[in-house]
Amino acid sequence: MIFALRPSERSGRPTLWIPLVRRIREPFKGLWALPGGPLSHTESLPDAALRNLRETTGLAPSYLEQLYAFGGLHRSPTQRVVSIVYWALVQPTEAALADESENVKWFRADRLGELAFDHNAIIDYALWRLRNKMAYGSIAYHLLGEYFTLAQVREVYEAVLDRELDPANFRRHVKATPEIEETDQYLQGGKHRPPRLYRFTGRPGLDPDNRSTP
Amino acid sequence: MIFALRPSERSGRPTLWIPLVRRIREPFKGLWALPGGPLSHTESLPDAALRNLRETTGLAPSYLEQLYAFGGLHRSPTQRVVSIVYWALVQPTEAALADESENVKWFRADRLGELAFDHNAIIDYALWRLRNKMAYGSIAYHLLGEYFTLAQVREVYEAVLDRELDPANFRRHVKATPEIEETDQYLQGGKHRPPRLYRFTGRPGLDPDNRSTP
Repeated sequence: MIFALRPSERSGRPTLWIPLVRRIREPFKGLWALPGGPLSHTESLPDAALRNLRETTGLAPSYLEQLYAFGGLHRSPTQRVVSIVYWALVQPTEAALADESENVKWFRADRLGELAFDHNAIIDYALWRLRNKMAYGSIAYHLLGEYFTLAQVREVYEAVLDRELDPANFRRHVKATPEIEETDQYLQGGKHRPPRLYRFTGRPGLDPDNRSTP
Repeated sequence: MIFALRPSERSGRPTLWIPLVRRIREPFKGLWALPGGPLSHTESLPDAALRNLRETTGLAPSYLEQLYAFGGLHRSPTQRVVSIVYWALVQPTEAALADESENVKWFRADRLGELAFDHNAIIDYALWRLRNKMAYGSIAYHLLGEYFTLAQVREVYEAVLDRELDPANFRRHVKATPEIEETDQYLQGGKHRPPRLYRFTGRPGLDPDNRSTP
């Protein structure tokens, strides 16, 4: 599963989007589903997840993390399926490179309609985790480019939390975060005084399968 | 995997313990390992985890959570194995009821020696997650009984974080936690003025496989 920020069609404000794949066979033929597929015996879990994302969207996300293993007995009407779900966050510039086709499309995460299998529940769980992680983590910065303004960080939080935040309070909060570094650069091209650019210096999330020393 | 607090042999202070099972066949015959086994087609993931814990230790933990799915290619020398690991936290009174035998024993989590497969790495990851969760969550209270003193909460934190904490600061911090409720009861049996008992009123962690509405 991939999350990326894209401007909403109406307001132009960033919102969370997610690419889905149309089912071309039963069960749930014709419905949209998360990209995924069987695990090969010679592939690690993150490699299999990356391959699936690449084959459907053409994207190679740099931030990938295990979300959860879903193993309920009735997830598929035809057989028992255990899905080890990975999620990726990609920056808008990466997401803009994604392939779309008749059977692969991006959707607003809050307007999905009915999906195949238990994929609505899986996405709801991912959104819940994302909101929780935003509260104390560095996850927001994986949705942004290398340089960003404090207003852009606030827009990410607003998109994920789905509510408006007080700009002055939020500014104070972010400026107090040790991993946020002020740069000497400013965002060009606006009408007003150009806002300062910041950089995230923290490390990516630990994924035990990716650690070099086990 | 189960964590419980038990008094250390030397100081009597609470430390983290974990039950292990001795391998009675190859690979790794004779080494200690986490309890576990194959998933049946008619069993949910948490049911399979609970069955394994019950069959080895006789315990039926009330707090069970999915830790992580481990799927590296070389985890077993004989075949590809993907392990979806669950962890449970049990209160000392529960842990005291656990069965022990020649092939099932409790070990201090920080003194395990070499275990079968990648189980040292899995336990290291669990300890890392436990320490992270302590920082902002309610997880400490699953290791305590229903009623506890503030000093007992501090001892849990000290056991998990493996360092001493300032009692006055810690007291202030816990008393400011909304889910901690003062009771009218006091711990009996000490030499000094009996300390007040508190109660945790928060809800257990969400496990998506256990949610009633998917």
